[in-house]
Amino acid sequence: MKILFTSVGRRVELIQAFRSAAKRLAVDITIIGADLVTDAPALYFCDEHLQVVRISDPLYIPNLVEYCAENKIDCLIPTIDTDLNLLAINKHKFEAVGTKVLISAVDKVKLCRDKNYTADYFISLGLKSPRPVNSVEKFEEAMMQGQVSFPAFIKPKDGSSSIDAYKVNNLEDLNVYAQKIGDYIIQPFISGREYTIDIFGDYEGNPVFITPRERLAVRSGEVLKTRITQDHKMIEEMKVLCADFKPCGQITVQLIREESTGDDYYIEINPRFGGGAPLSIKAGADSAEAVIRMLLGQSLSYSEGAARDGAIYSRFDQSICINP
Amino acid sequence: MKILFTSVGRRVELIQAFRSAAKRLAVDITIIGADLVTDAPALYFCDEHLQVVRISDPLYIPNLVEYCAENKIDCLIPTIDTDLNLLAINKHKFEAVGTKVLISAVDKVKLCRDKNYTADYFISLGLKSPRPVNSVEKFEEAMMQGQVSFPAFIKPKDGSSSIDAYKVNNLEDLNVYAQKIGDYIIQPFISGREYTIDIFGDYEGNPVFITPRERLAVRSGEVLKTRITQDHKMIEEMKVLCADFKPCGQITVQLIREESTGDDYYIEINPRFGGGAPLSIKAGADSAEAVIRMLLGQSLSYSEGAARDGAIYSRFDQSICINP
Repeated sequence: MKILFTSVGRRVELIQAFRSAAKRLAVDITIIGADLVTDAPALYFCDEHLQVVRISDPLYIPNLVEYCAENKIDCLIPTIDTDLNLLAINKHKFEAVGTKVLISAVDKVKLCRDKNYTADYFISLGLKSPRPVNSVEKFEEAMMQGQVSFPAFIKPKDGSSSIDAYKVNNLEDLNVYAQKIGDYIIQPFISGREYTIDIFGDYEGNPVFITPRERLAVRSGEVLKTRITQDHKMIEEMKVLCADFKPCGQITVQLIREESTGDDYYIEINPRFGGGAPLSIKAGADSAEAVIRMLLGQSLSYSEGAARDGAIYSRFDQSICINP
Repeated sequence: MKILFTSVGRRVELIQAFRSAAKRLAVDITIIGADLVTDAPALYFCDEHLQVVRISDPLYIPNLVEYCAENKIDCLIPTIDTDLNLLAINKHKFEAVGTKVLISAVDKVKLCRDKNYTADYFISLGLKSPRPVNSVEKFEEAMMQGQVSFPAFIKPKDGSSSIDAYKVNNLEDLNVYAQKIGDYIIQPFISGREYTIDIFGDYEGNPVFITPRERLAVRSGEVLKTRITQDHKMIEEMKVLCADFKPCGQITVQLIREESTGDDYYIEINPRFGGGAPLSIKAGADSAEAVIRMLLGQSLSYSEGAARDGAIYSRFDQSICINP
């Protein structure tokens, strides 16, 4: 079985999860890591490397499709935001050469990438979401009408990893950050605990695992410490989302549980393996194993509370020499 | 042999370096990790845990000394900035119970902790350093006299890990960040490549290893990718520093090589194992082995270019369940 990860970067733990699942299932696996650069650390944990052109290059998709066809790749798994739209749009080209792509439908991927759409989507499902505005002027207007107040949260419209995401306490600062970011959104700041929910759906979009994790410590938007929290309310809310979103492969959903009301405010959806996904996998919601089973033709069913409730995972740095 | 690391936190790679050096030298080692919390990931790689009170608690040092005496600890190694002053001041108390502390002299540690002193120190040694000012008004004055110009760099006076360190392009933004940070310094922004130099000195402060590394990629102030660069000029500059500083154990020095002039602008000294220290160790400047040799009573001499020139190291995340 051959699995290709695009933009494999630093996803060492994810690669390891697939390798150990394959071993457990006694499946012969070849893991191919694709990246723009040749020195990404995760490449050193793959069986084969594929150097690709920039995602913005018109040859990105044709080259990938050709590679998948020639090398009989069973499955392509994206790991970063920037190629998700492209892969969703071109999914059929990969399927035509026998390669499954773990990506959700085009319209769903699109709404994840633009945070203006994401909030509306959550609200359309009956979930709460801090509705963003896309200019300081609109935030001021809403403020004068008593709809919003400081603190506010400003971040790039299509950003990720909390890069350039700031909590702001007044209009002066808001203007500084707005200028700095360029294409931004402003949301009311929600005070409470932050959670990530790792969801794995089969190729038809039926949920297999729904794993809420509290983000206990974060660095640069990536989780350093997390606690599996089998919260019934969140899980039910995500079942509502899954029924419409039809997640294909792994997606992660981020939310804040507001501290005074206990309401869940949903912030974003990333339709890919999130950086912390290996933590849910290690805790028992083994989506690496699920992918392999799916490719073996096994049908999967929903597994309630697969990850061990209360398990705490903590992350640390490891390094590898990439020109040994 | 018993080695105690204070605030062991996420220093898994450093612990591993000591363990593998001990194995290579066939030395029976016990590694004790001290931390305020009981769930720091590095604790799970230590042989014994020691839960300590806050560094600000008056019992912090007496408790540590008592523990070292009772458990016949051979060596104490600090890993974070906040207890360096305390450990330097109280070094003799540990020595009185037979525990060596890898910390430089009180006056040297003090000048590292306050970036106003650090710049003066570098300059007093004939090295270049972007001299800081400690108020926006002073920066404005210097600007009007044509001494400095934007961009500038603002950061906390005693900060670390690039937390709240910002490049700023105009006075308005400078005021915003100044208010945000509180006790800050402002430096002219130096444009060029960033380097860290890992230096290991023996107990008398004689340098054993001097290892310049280019910081190729950084996240939250911690290096993600580094290249060993046996740069003769930097090494000679660090020999000048060592002759006066007398580094005891590991210190790291940060600098920027200005892109147009090639001049080295020294920024800071951290008199402890830096986050990236395991990279120099892996490349051959094995200060973990040196510590053990020193404790065995061996005398060390200066080892020129011990780390392999040009070796590139890249870091990635690993995780561990801390309530298995």
